[in-house]
Order: sequence, then structure tokens, then C-alpha cells
Amino acid sequence: MQDDERAIRDLIDAWQRATAAGDSERVLRLMADDVVFLAPGQPPMRGKAAFAAASQAALSQFRIESTSEIQELRVLGDWAWCWNQLSLVVTPLAGGSPIKRAGNTLSILRKDSTGAWTIVRDANMLAVVSQ
Amino acid sequence: MQDDERAIRDLIDAWQRATAAGDSERVLRLMADDVVFLAPGQPPMRGKAAFAAASQAALSQFRIESTSEIQELRVLGDWAWCWNQLSLVVTPLAGGSPIKRAGNTLSILRKDSTGAWTIVRDANMLAVVSQ
Repeated sequence: MQDDERAIRDLIDAWQRATAAGDSERVLRLMADDVVFLAPGQPPMRGKAAFAAASQAALSQFRIESTSEIQELRVLGDWAWCWNQLSLVVTPLAGGSPIKRAGNTLSILRKDSTGAWTIVRDANMLAVVSQ
Repeated sequence: MQDDERAIRDLIDAWQRATAAGDSERVLRLMADDVVFLAPGQPPMRGKAAFAAASQAALSQFRIESTSEIQELRVLGDWAWCWNQLSLVVTPLAGGSPIKRAGNTLSILRKDSTGAWTIVRDANMLAVVSQ
């Protein structure tokens, strides 16, 4: 496996572990300042600050645990794209039944000037899984 | 505008016009054999043949007219990615009220051995717009 592919797989793993730990600051370091998150039925979420606000609100109320299975990862110089299959278990910290969400993501990544990979665009197609 | 960007914009325009005209054969020539379509709540649709079956079924029942506004288009050698905002009007051919769908797509494109661009991966985040 090439170094870039390994670095991107590590990034995705770090993202999931930091989210499960409620470590929003760590997650923020894995995305570009000009990141855009796309999801159905919502306007594009533009920029790290918008993600930070949404993430902190979510992580103050829920534990978000996930498993992922990377379907494809293609490195193109300082750019890459990744198709991932994700399963999330979203558990209210105040108690209550967890909600399961699952589906595909398609992400664009870029290597920044320090050589670190970051998420720059993310298409999130997760949907609630009926129990 | 570079030739590749122009070719990709023409592809997206051709896709919309062929779909509106019910010309499934023309749409099929704009995607790679190994294309994968990703959408919420559905398993990945893999390959041109699967798209052909779904498209022919849809176009036999509906007229699908769309407008699009390309948000970003980045060419990376023989690869490219494109973020698009789409609005669809899906009208039953047998009569009845049209359904509006709108949202974002994130697509990966590849230049094939003949120099033609094709869609290879497509993340579709369109949702029904309430009237």
C-alpha cells in the first residue's frame, strides 16, 4: 500500500475514533478550512466553522459510534477520492434508544502544503435504518 | 476555459437533454461501463447495464426535465470531479402532478482511451421538494 493511501486510511480511522470519543477539535484538524459537506434535503454546509458548530451541538447530546468499509480509494497526485460504506449508531447521552444510520459517502481529499491529507468535499448519503 | 472543462460541461448538458428527450441510449454513452451510482437508502447501482434497466423503466413512465448549476469542476489530468446542484421535474406520462426533486450531486469523471470524458462514480443527494 502506498504512503498516501495509508495516510488517508489513517485519517478516516482517526475521524471515526475522535467522533466516538466526542473529540470535536481532533475531527476539525482532519478537514480543510474550505471544506463543504453535502447531504440530502439540506443546503451545503460550508467551512470548518459551520461544521464545528454542528458537531459540538451533536456531540454534546449524542455518542456517535461508526464502522466503515472503504470501497474504493484513488490517489491522484495531491488529490484523492474515496467511496466509503458507513454504519453509525447514534446514542442519546441522556438515555433512550440508539438510532442506526447507514449508507455510502463519496469524499474528495487534498494534500495540504504540510503534506497532510484533509477532507475537502464530502457527499453523505446515510439514511436511517429501520430497526 | 480549458478544453477538458468545456468537454465535461458539454457532457453534463448532453446528459440532461438526452434524459429530457427520453433518449436512454445517448445517456448510456456518457458513462463508463463500470459506473457506480450512489444514493441514500439504496444499495450501490453498479454498471451500465443496471443503469440501463432502471433508466428505461423510468423513462417509459416519466418525463424527466432538469436544470443544473455546476458549483465546482476540477480537472486532475485524466480524472475530474464535479459538484453540481440539480433541480428535476418528474412528470408522469400518463398524466398527474409532476414531482420536484432538488439537491446536490458529487461526481467523479474519467477520460477514456478515446479521449472522451465519462461519469464513473455519482453521489446523488436529491430529495423531494414539498410543493
